[in-house]
Parts: sequence; C-alpha cells; structure tokens
Amino acid sequence: MIQIGIIMGSSSDWPVMQQAAKILEAFGVAYEARVVSAHRTPDLMFEYAENARARGIKAIIAGAGGAAHLPGMVAAKTTVPVLGVPVPGRYLSGKDSLLSIVQMPKGIPVATFAIGGAGAANAALFAVAMLANESPGLAEQLEAFRRRQQAAVLAMELPAAE
Amino acid sequence: MIQIGIIMGSSSDWPVMQQAAKILEAFGVAYEARVVSAHRTPDLMFEYAENARARGIKAIIAGAGGAAHLPGMVAAKTTVPVLGVPVPGRYLSGKDSLLSIVQMPKGIPVATFAIGGAGAANAALFAVAMLANESPGLAEQLEAFRRRQQAAVLAMELPAAE
Amino acid sequence: MIQIGIIMGSSSDWPVMQQAAKILEAFGVAYEARVVSAHRTPDLMFEYAENARARGIKAIIAGAGGAAHLPGMVAAKTTVPVLGVPVPGRYLSGKDSLLSIVQMPKGIPVATFAIGGAGAANAALFAVAMLANESPGLAEQLEAFRRRQQAAVLAMELPAAE
Amino acid sequence: MIQIGIIMGSSSDWPVMQQAAKILEAFGVAYEARVVSAHRTPDLMFEYAENARARGIKAIIAGAGGAAHLPGMVAAKTTVPVLGVPVPGRYLSGKDSLLSIVQMPKGIPVATFAIGGAGAANAALFAVAMLANESPGLAEQLEAFRRRQQAAVLAMELPAAE
Amino acid sequence: MIQIGIIMGSSSDWPVMQQAAKILEAFGVAYEARVVSAHRTPDLMFEYAENARARGIKAIIAGAGGAAHLPGMVAAKTTVPVLGVPVPGRYLSGKDSLLSIVQMPKGIPVATFAIGGAGAANAALFAVAMLANESPGLAEQLEAFRRRQQAAVLAMELPAAE
Amino acid sequence: MIQIGIIMGSSSDWPVMQQAAKILEAFGVAYEARVVSAHRTPDLMFEYAENARARGIKAIIAGAGGAAHLPGMVAAKTTVPVLGVPVPGRYLSGKDSLLSIVQMPKGIPVATFAIGGAGAANAALFAVAMLANESPGLAEQLEAFRRRQQAAVLAMELPAAE
Amino acid sequence: MIQIGIIMGSSSDWPVMQQAAKILEAFGVAYEARVVSAHRTPDLMFEYAENARARGIKAIIAGAGGAAHLPGMVAAKTTVPVLGVPVPGRYLSGKDSLLSIVQMPKGIPVATFAIGGAGAANAALFAVAMLANESPGLAEQLEAFRRRQQAAVLAMELPAAE
Amino acid sequence: MIQIGIIMGSSSDWPVMQQAAKILEAFGVAYEARVVSAHRTPDLMFEYAENARARGIKAIIAGAGGAAHLPGMVAAKTTVPVLGVPVPGRYLSGKDSLLSIVQMPKGIPVATFAIGGAGAANAALFAVAMLANESPGLAEQLEAFRRRQQAAVLAMELPAAE
Repeated sequence: MIQIGIIMGSSSDWPVMQQAAKILEAFGVAYEARVVSAHRTPDLMFEYAENARARGIKAIIAGAGGAAHLPGMVAAKTTVPVLGVPVPGRYLSGKDSLLSIVQMPKGIPVATFAIGGAGAANAALFAVAMLANESPGLAEQLEAFRRRQQAAVLAMELPAAE
Repeated sequence: MIQIGIIMGSSSDWPVMQQAAKILEAFGVAYEARVVSAHRTPDLMFEYAENARARGIKAIIAGAGGAAHLPGMVAAKTTVPVLGVPVPGRYLSGKDSLLSIVQMPKGIPVATFAIGGAGAANAALFAVAMLANESPGLAEQLEAFRRRQQAAVLAMELPAAE
Repeated sequence: MIQIGIIMGSSSDWPVMQQAAKILEAFGVAYEARVVSAHRTPDLMFEYAENARARGIKAIIAGAGGAAHLPGMVAAKTTVPVLGVPVPGRYLSGKDSLLSIVQMPKGIPVATFAIGGAGAANAALFAVAMLANESPGLAEQLEAFRRRQQAAVLAMELPAAE
Repeated sequence: MIQIGIIMGSSSDWPVMQQAAKILEAFGVAYEARVVSAHRTPDLMFEYAENARARGIKAIIAGAGGAAHLPGMVAAKTTVPVLGVPVPGRYLSGKDSLLSIVQMPKGIPVATFAIGGAGAANAALFAVAMLANESPGLAEQLEAFRRRQQAAVLAMELPAAE
Repeated sequence: MIQIGIIMGSSSDWPVMQQAAKILEAFGVAYEARVVSAHRTPDLMFEYAENARARGIKAIIAGAGGAAHLPGMVAAKTTVPVLGVPVPGRYLSGKDSLLSIVQMPKGIPVATFAIGGAGAANAALFAVAMLANESPGLAEQLEAFRRRQQAAVLAMELPAAE
Repeated sequence: MIQIGIIMGSSSDWPVMQQAAKILEAFGVAYEARVVSAHRTPDLMFEYAENARARGIKAIIAGAGGAAHLPGMVAAKTTVPVLGVPVPGRYLSGKDSLLSIVQMPKGIPVATFAIGGAGAANAALFAVAMLANESPGLAEQLEAFRRRQQAAVLAMELPAAE
Repeated sequence: MIQIGIIMGSSSDWPVMQQAAKILEAFGVAYEARVVSAHRTPDLMFEYAENARARGIKAIIAGAGGAAHLPGMVAAKTTVPVLGVPVPGRYLSGKDSLLSIVQMPKGIPVATFAIGGAGAANAALFAVAMLANESPGLAEQLEAFRRRQQAAVLAMELPAAE
Repeated sequence: MIQIGIIMGSSSDWPVMQQAAKILEAFGVAYEARVVSAHRTPDLMFEYAENARARGIKAIIAGAGGAAHLPGMVAAKTTVPVLGVPVPGRYLSGKDSLLSIVQMPKGIPVATFAIGGAGAANAALFAVAMLANESPGLAEQLEAFRRRQQAAVLAMELPAAE
C-alpha cells in the first residue's frame, strides 16, 4: 500500500521532486508521484487531501514554486503530515516559495525543507524517519544510510591546491 | 446588491482591512465584509469563491498575512477579479505575505496592492475604478476624490524647521 | 475599439510584455502595445494617461523595470485601472521593480502582478476578467480557459525518477 | 513514557517554545522541555540526541535563534525526526535563524516551521499528526481540534468600520 | 534668489526633510521647502520641475517614501540636478523607497542618499558642496563644518563600561 | 583642465566604469580615469582626495564593489562632490556595495547611483548637470541629449507578439 | 602594555561596544577604548592604524554602523588583526553594516562578528583566544569561562507553560 | 608542526577553500586541509575540535555552505580561534551561510569572512596576521605582501573607453 504521496504543481517541478522519489525507492517505501496543482486543479487538490488518510497515506510531500500554496492548502484539508519543498523559480531563487510555505499560521502546520533538490531529498528522508519510528527495519536502514554517508565523507580526498 | 466582497483570514486583520470598507462606504458601493480563512475554513473559502459570480460580486478584496494563501486560492476557484492585500505580521513586516500573494503562477492572476492599510484602501479604490468603467457616476466620484486629494496636498503647510 | 493599452518603458521589455499581448489576442480583446517611457518621454506618458478614458481604454497594463515609475505615474494621471508588471532587470531580479510598483501610497492604486512574463500574462488575464464582468461571452471564454488549463495539468505525466 | 522532547538553547527561548508545550499538553501527549545549547553545552546536545531513540522519543522539537545550529546538529546525531523552530532575535526578526535551520544539506533533514510562537505551536501540532498516524484516538483529537478551530473562525464578527 | 528646492510628497515627510533645511540654513543657502506629490499633484510636480532652471534653482532635494517616484519623475522633467532622499515608511524601513529612487535607468540620474534624516542632511551638504565649486566662501564654510565635526568627535569621551 | 575624476578600485571595474567615461567624452567634458584602491592603496586614495580641489576637480565619480569603501573614504577627505557607483560583485549582485555606498552617516555625503553600468553612466550625466549649472552650453547639450533620448524611445517599434 | 584597541565611530556606539570592554576586563587583558571615526576623523584613523603594531597592539576591535568603513579602512593601514563589529542603525537593523564590514575584497581581511552587543562580546572573546595561543594562563581562563557558561545553561530552569 | 587547519564539509567546497591553502603556502605556513562535515561526520568534527589545541593548531579555517554549522560547532568544542568562510550554494548565493556563520550567540565567537574564494583567502591572511603577532618574519612577509599588492594596483592600466 502506498505510504507516501509526492505531489507537485506541474511536471516541470519533477527534476526537483524526483530527488524525493529516488530516496523513497532506495528505502523501499511505497509512494506515488502525481501532478496536483493548487491553482489550476483546486478541486483535485482538495479531493487528494481529503482522501489521503483513508488511503493509508502517512505523509504527503508537496513541492511548489512562486506563491507556493500547494503544501499549505493540502495541510488545511487533511491531518496527515504535510512536508513542503520550495521549488526555485526563475527570478527569486525560491525565496518566495520558502516564505509562502514556511510562514503558515498557527493551527495548520507544514514541515518545510530546503530550497530545491536537497530539500526534496530531505523531505523524503524525513518521511522515512517518521515511518522508522514504527519500523525497526527502516530505522536500521536509516542508520545504515547515515553510516554510508559518513563513510563517503571520510573517503573524500582533496587534490593539491592549484 | 452586494458588488464587492471583502474577506480576510481572521478578525484580527480587520484594523487593516477596514480601510477598504471605509473607501467603499465613502463611494456608496455595496459590499460585505467577512472572515473566511484559507487554512481554517477551506471549504467555506471554496464555496465563497464558487458562488461569487452568481451572487453578482464584481471583485473580491482578500487580505491575508504570513503564508498568505487566501487571495490566490480564491482566485483559483472563481473568474471574478481578486484583489490581494498583504497584511503585515509580527516578524517579517508583511514581506512574506507580499511575495505569497503577488508571485502567482501564470494562469491565475491576483491583483496585489501595498502592504497594510494603504494597500487595503487602494484595493478598494481600484475596485471602484473597475466599476467606474461602467458607471459615469462613479467615474465622476473618483475624479472628485482625486481632486479633493490634490487639494489636500496643495493645502499642506510646512512648519519652520526646528 | 481598443479596450486595453499595453505600455512599457522600452522595446527591450517586449519579450516580457508580449505575454500580455498573446493572452489578449487569444481572447479576442482589442489592445494596443506601445513604448511609453516614464523617464524619457514623461509628457507622452501624461498625455497617454490623460486620454485613456476618453479613448475608451478600460485598463492599462504597464510594464517597467528597475525604479519602475511608469505604472504609478500613469495611475496618478488617470482613473482608468492600471495594472503593473515588474520587468526583471540585470542585477536585482525584478525585486526593485516589484517594490517600486506595489508600494504605492494610499490614494493612487496600481494592481501589481508577478515578476516577468507570468505577471504580464496574468495582468492580461485579470484585464479579461474585468471585462468579463460585463460580458457573458468573455466570462464563458475565461471559464473555458480555466478548464483547458486544468485539463493540461491533469494530462501531465511524470517520467520515472532517473 | 515521554514521546516528544522540546529543547531550546536558553531559558529565554521559553516564551516562544512553550507554545509547543501547551499544544502537547492539550493533546495529552507526554513531553519533556529542556534547555540544551548547541554552542554552550555541545556534549549534552550530542548525548541528548544519541539517547533519544532508546528513550522512546518519537520527535524532537528544537527551537533556536541567530545562527541556529541546535536543530541541525541534533538531527546529525539521531535518526529521530527533528522539528526546528526559528526563534526571533533582536535584530534580524528570525530571518537568520530561519535560513540556518531550513537550509540543511542533502542527507540530514530538519522539518522547519514558522518564525516564533506560531511555528512552535505548529511544530507540536505536526508532532501530534505524526503520532496520530498510529493512534486513531489522537487522529480523532486532531480532527476535533480542526473543527473547533474552524468554528472559532466562523464565529468571528467584524465590528463596523470606524 | 532661491538656490535649492526641497520638495516632499507630504507634510508628514517634514520631520525627515527638515534635516536638509536646517543644514541649508546653517550655511546661509537660500532654499524653499514645498509639498509636491508625484501621485497626488502630478501636474504641479511637472510644472515645478519644468520651471526649476528658469527660476535659478541649482539643485532639487526630493524626499519620498514607499514607491518613491518623486525624485525620478522630477529628474525626468528637468536637467537641474536632483537629489533623492528615501523616507522610511511603516513596514519596510525605507528599503522600498531606496530601491525606487536609486535604481533609475540609464539616461535620467538621481543622486541618492541614505534612508531618513541622515540622508536628508547629507543631500543638503552635497548641494552645498556643488555650490561651493563656484563659491570660495561656501567652500571655506564647508571646510569649517568638517573641522567642527572632527573636533566634536575628538572631544567625545567614553564613560566606564557598566 | 580636468574637471571630473573617475576612480575605481581595480581595472576589473573598468567595463562598468567606462560607461561614465563614454558619457563625459560625448559631452566634451575633460576627465581622467584612474585605478585608486581604498584597501590596497589607501595613501594614494587620501592623496588623490586631498588634492582634488586644488587640481580643479569639480566632481569625483568613484566605483567600487563588495564592501565598497572608496566613495565614502574619498568623501571623508575632500569637500569636492563625490558620486558613488556600486559595482556588482560575484555573489550579491551589488546589493552589498549599494548599501556600503549609500548608507553614509550624517556629515559626509556620497551621491549614489544605480548598480552597474547604468549607474556609472548616470553618475557622469549628473556630473554634467552639475557643470551645466554654470555653463549654458553644457545645459543646452544636456537638453539635446534628453531630446535625442526621447526621440529614440518614440522611434521604438514593437514586433508582433510571437 | 595595551594589547587590544577598541575603537568606534561615535560615543553613541559605546552601549554596544562596551560589551567588548567588559569581556576584556573580566579576562584582565589590557585594552584602550577610543572614538575614531573613519569619515569624520580619517587622518586620526590612519594614524591609529599605522602606529598600532609599534604600540604593541595585538588586535583592533572596530565597531561601526551604516556604511561601516572603519574596520576595513583600519585593516587597509595595518597588518595587525582587525575584528569588525556591525553596530545596528535606525532603519536596517545592522544588515547594511554587516555587509559593509564582511564583504572585504581579497587581500585585506576583517574578521567579522554578529550584529550588536553579542558580536562585540564575541570579538573580545576571539581576541582573548588569539592571545591565549601564546598564554597558557589565558587559555585556562578561557576554558574556565566556557565551563561557567556551560554550567549556567545546565542550571537554567523552565517554568511551567502558562 | 601544523599551525593552521583548513576544514570544509565536502570536497566540493575545495575550489573555494583552496584559496586559503594557496595563501598559507605562499607564506610558508604549515597547514592541513581536510574534509570534516558537521552534519555527516559530527563525531569526527568534535574530535577534530577537541584535539586541535593539543596538536598545536593555532587557528581553524572552516568553510561551509547552506545551513553552515561547521564553523560554529567547531568553535563550541575548542577555544582555538575559528575563522568561518561562507561557501556560496546553488540558490541563495551564500547569504544563508553568511548569516548561519556570523550570527553566533554571545559566548562562542566565529570570525567571519566574505562569501566565497575572497573570504577563504582573507581568512588565511588573517591567520597569518595572527601568527605574525609573534613572528617578526611573518610580519615582514605580510608587509611585503601588502606592498606587492599595492604595486599591482599602481601598475594597472585602463584601456580607452570602447
């Protein structure tokens, strides 16, 4: 059963948001990735949010750029945890989307991550960590991921200064 | 019949948004002012937007602070013109709401005005100007408003430098 | 008769501003597009603004970059609704023009849209929405535009994560 | 057993961070609130993070101001989900802490919330939502919280414009 | 004969702009101070600018807040040197006015000074320096001003650290 | 005799600062262009500033990037009018230099212009305008420049929207 | 013999800069505190910088606000390490001074600290750390300071959430 | 014996951080350059910091991007002077790392330098200046470096304006 929903306002957000998908695949977490636009398909967005809990979705990762309303509006329509990823736009480098996502009013939380692909990957890692609270296997996978990550840093070599 | 809807996410936005109401009253334009929250009453928001045209609303003035989603989401659900007013919050002086409102993606416009009460008043003046396109009486009122405004500036006196 | 005027400070703004023209053409709304510079042709600007209402112009879409004074100064000289579009410049990504356009003082409104081409297109869509208040045909066209836009999102497919 | 740890760099952050505590109390979620400073008690911080999973902590809410390193460094030492809250400082209104918390590199996620008390409350609500994934009772409490919140908005009245 | 014109959009800018007046008085430079609003009295503004050279005005000091168009538009209508002073507004601390004044396009210069009263005083000192190019007396006064200023710094004492 | 000094911190600033030189050449105003670095040749800078008035320099145009101290420090050592041009750097697009130049304390003015080449050109045009106060010939040249500039705008044509 | 020089542009910077003095006193490090203004006493500034090494000064802590040129210009005239402290001004909260101090060009370093009193205290602690490299006694004092600081955090208690 | 440690969070920071290495090599100061990640190798980071003084390290130059925690966390674990260099990231040009590094709380100082390679080079020059306090030879080398730098500026020639 699908545990994580990845949604984004346009297929043009996919280069950023697929970083989330790749993490979930690496951890063997079942997910779906769909285009759901807050502004162009508002009813679909509400329907998606309303059905999420009943469909067994444990977290929704929502990426959006510009006046990024998708994460916050999905959060307004479900109590399933929503993770927001600011997608950088053409002119303001994602600073507008970061503020549009993170500055939610008291009462409706959106967990916000870094601008761009690093944020998308981290949203997925965070979703894995949430699931790992109830899954010793995932928790161990996550520890292993951290160890590999650490090993990769330890193996880095610096060439001579040019 | 009500021509302009003024909506805002909380009654705490009223000190700002009543600047719009006062302008509409001064011009004798029928309006309603209601609390409609994007995040706390999303269904009411959609319903309000969906019914606006049928109810004869000619423009919706929506004020919101922080991750200000109200104007954009209302615009996503109606083709009635939406005018957005950034309401200043506690920490970022409305810069977050300005970006959340103005940076709408191509396809769903929100006409954005200045942060705070000046923006609310100007949204109302803009709504009057829209109506004035079809109403010579309102157009004349607007010209008179401008003349009074000009006269007020001309009458300003500067005291001696202290 | 021309209903919408599109003006900009330089022909170099055209790549951005033609996004407005293309929308108006698609909706069959009569428009004109002209170069009118606030700083280099101030008299022409005032004349353009002063004559707009008498010429039957229902909205003026004004694009400008840097210290973007064109929308606000046109608005100061006419009660015809003015729609401002921040054109991104070389160094500040349009943030300077956004503030120069949107932060108008109480009394002279400019409806402001997003930075760049998306903002230009949205200004035009907003102008169409204004006209649609008095034209059931345009209103239906606008609804159809929204439906096509929604269908385009629904048809988007995401490739596999690379 | 304690499920949520609330930590902050100084007791002076408590006016902000107690908004998280109050939410958890309202939901009957067991929590602890402690002062743990990244810069002044780094070993305690590492120890706290390292022991969190074994102690049964399901989420750590970490508030910090200025160069806010606490959430990110705790996240570096545990796979328990970390929720970061930017605490506004004296000069930059929390913008520095927001960036220091949200812009984590790929590999170590921190779920970030709004600046100040609203963010602290929302971090707690998000933690409740995480727990609610495994607790139908909490899920129902969360739905009830949303309904009360909605009712509060619906009951808001606007006084006459002054 | 009046040599320097000080103009501002509203009498509410006077607390800032009188810092310019006080400097000119101290140097015995003839000036006038008037309210001229770009947005509310655009024709007066153009007239003021157009007549400046013929009236013998050697420099125009223009203060404005928000979308500060006054300095740039006056500069567009005269070749008399224009000095712009950003007046801080309620929400953005004058950052909007600074950008609106300084980011003029190639061809129409505005000499911009610091936000607020220090900028107003400096605009006046700069105007004095311009006049001093042709007036040995003023040049000597300016040197004396600098010497007094230096002496004031040299005389400053620091109390013991509390 | 040289009337205007153009100085900059490095020959790498020349692509920006030569826009000032080209304007002065076009107006037939005698100028010199030199590399004078605030940080690497501080004594030369002081010497340059101290001698400027005696050498007959009427204005100094100083361009600088990053922590742009050149204009302000030259201004501290001469009462000759100093015009500052922010040169855009690699990371902050000149925003750092703009603030470093424009935010001068009360007592030592620097007339600041736009970031980059447009600002350099405008600083030169402003210098010409200063000189024109005492030179009817230059004043006429400046008027002619404005007329040509206006004509260039009037001649601009917009191609069809693509 | 004086080891550390604390300088600032005005006695009004003392409330911020005395935080540095208090730290040095607590560590028994000999210092002097003087008003030296980059813009109003440039020759004194150069003289101060030029003589610093010969006078045995091991570090100069320079505080400045607005277009903060003092630290960078002192650094240009001495090879003694210079530590810069941004002093918050009236309108931009010290962001202008931070950029003016930190963005020094390659070749002339200024070690920059946080905005305001915390930065002043930290500059002093950093100076102590520099001296501690050659003084086991100071190194031990610094360790003791850190231990006391840690103990203070460990002793902090949180009242009940209100 | 190694005197200066250069550390950075990833080998991808080396193009920036090698500017520090090159300066140290030019001055004949013994250094090491290593990858130490705050987030991916936190224990290594603590160990590195804890052992620095005993190993004879006189200064640690730490470069980091995004939520740049490396300099501040190393500083929390050692009293050896820490010099921080903001490494520009993909979206915010290093502004996030600058704030994350410089805005340290009172008690734990990090000396911060400019964004990018200029900052890395200056951190190294600053480290040399620290060592030069105890080494007349290094002090003379530093003076010579400054003289060569000055000579390079004096030799710069400006081509004719194009």
